[in-house]
Amino acid sequence: MAQDSAASPGKVPRTARGRETLRKLLDAAAAEFGERGFHEASISGITRRAGTALGSFYTYFDSKDAIFTALVRDMSARVATTAAAAVSEGATGLRREREALVGFLHFAREHKEIYRIIDEAEFADPESYRAHYEGTATRIAARLAEGVQAGIVRHGDQEVRAWAIMGMNVFLGLRYGVWDDSRPVEEIAEVAADLLGEGLNRR
Amino acid sequence: MAQDSAASPGKVPRTARGRETLRKLLDAAAAEFGERGFHEASISGITRRAGTALGSFYTYFDSKDAIFTALVRDMSARVATTAAAAVSEGATGLRREREALVGFLHFAREHKEIYRIIDEAEFADPESYRAHYEGTATRIAARLAEGVQAGIVRHGDQEVRAWAIMGMNVFLGLRYGVWDDSRPVEEIAEVAADLLGEGLNRR
Repeated sequence: MAQDSAASPGKVPRTARGRETLRKLLDAAAAEFGERGFHEASISGITRRAGTALGSFYTYFDSKDAIFTALVRDMSARVATTAAAAVSEGATGLRREREALVGFLHFAREHKEIYRIIDEAEFADPESYRAHYEGTATRIAARLAEGVQAGIVRHGDQEVRAWAIMGMNVFLGLRYGVWDDSRPVEEIAEVAADLLGEGLNRR
Repeated sequence: MAQDSAASPGKVPRTARGRETLRKLLDAAAAEFGERGFHEASISGITRRAGTALGSFYTYFDSKDAIFTALVRDMSARVATTAAAAVSEGATGLRREREALVGFLHFAREHKEIYRIIDEAEFADPESYRAHYEGTATRIAARLAEGVQAGIVRHGDQEVRAWAIMGMNVFLGLRYGVWDDSRPVEEIAEVAADLLGEGLNRR
């Protein structure tokens, strides 16, 4: 989702300055929800962090629920953009999955609050939670289908594979991104790509 | 965790009847927390579902937090037991992972509340949340190491692999266990085992 469509219906900013305020509010919301959790977070906490007036909040959002939904969708879109940006031009199949994972692991380290926010959406905004994972899995399945077309990925059930790969990435990001970032991202991605590319079986 | 050690310290049941009451309370807690979430759930809701007196609750647990922690650990132990029980005697390597996944997918379908409960532990009881995943990953890594010993699994970083496989299983359980159980469990496990065994690369 482009950040300027993150506002509540009828509240889309029309100026560069408005878009900047909206971005500040979303970043402040990430910090507020990430640190305090959905229930404890407050609109005044968000505007204080953003350094904006309370009125600015209501210029763009109807409620705490509305900015939380916008934030989940914004983070979901940023995960997609980050993964896409991390992939080299023309990379397909395993190389593409590996580069996307490297991008995601860096993102998770830089935005550790993302897990808490997405995971809390399971309770505070189940629709956005589901949309995030369904959207991500659909993108992975499409990448795999392109890899099959290119002749480098084996035929198979791309939907089930996509959910498996997404789960793998999410848990590697939790363990080696959020909880402990002491190991090089490339090292984690190397093990994952080897597992995904060649499998476990000794030949 | 054995169910009779699930009670609060000093409150372990000493009779078969006591253990039965404790089990009833844990099952009722799974339904109460699963349906209403941690914040809305109440001790009286749990005892009503269990058909026990309020006094019985305090015979075994100190608080709502205490039974929630006991429940997360009980579910975590049941996931471990279920996966172990689903594996044929002597199965190693990929066959073992596949059978464990089949067991887990059945468990997720029969206990759909488990996701909500474990996921809510991230917020309500982070220590148990972490212990659940660290414990599960440690078991998977140990299984893989045995597979290497047996000469059927390729050498590699078993810890990273274990987190990848666990994530895969968790997301397949969410998608094909909890959200939509229309596809046969064996079919999902077949795709996952093929991916895990042979990898994506066309040869």
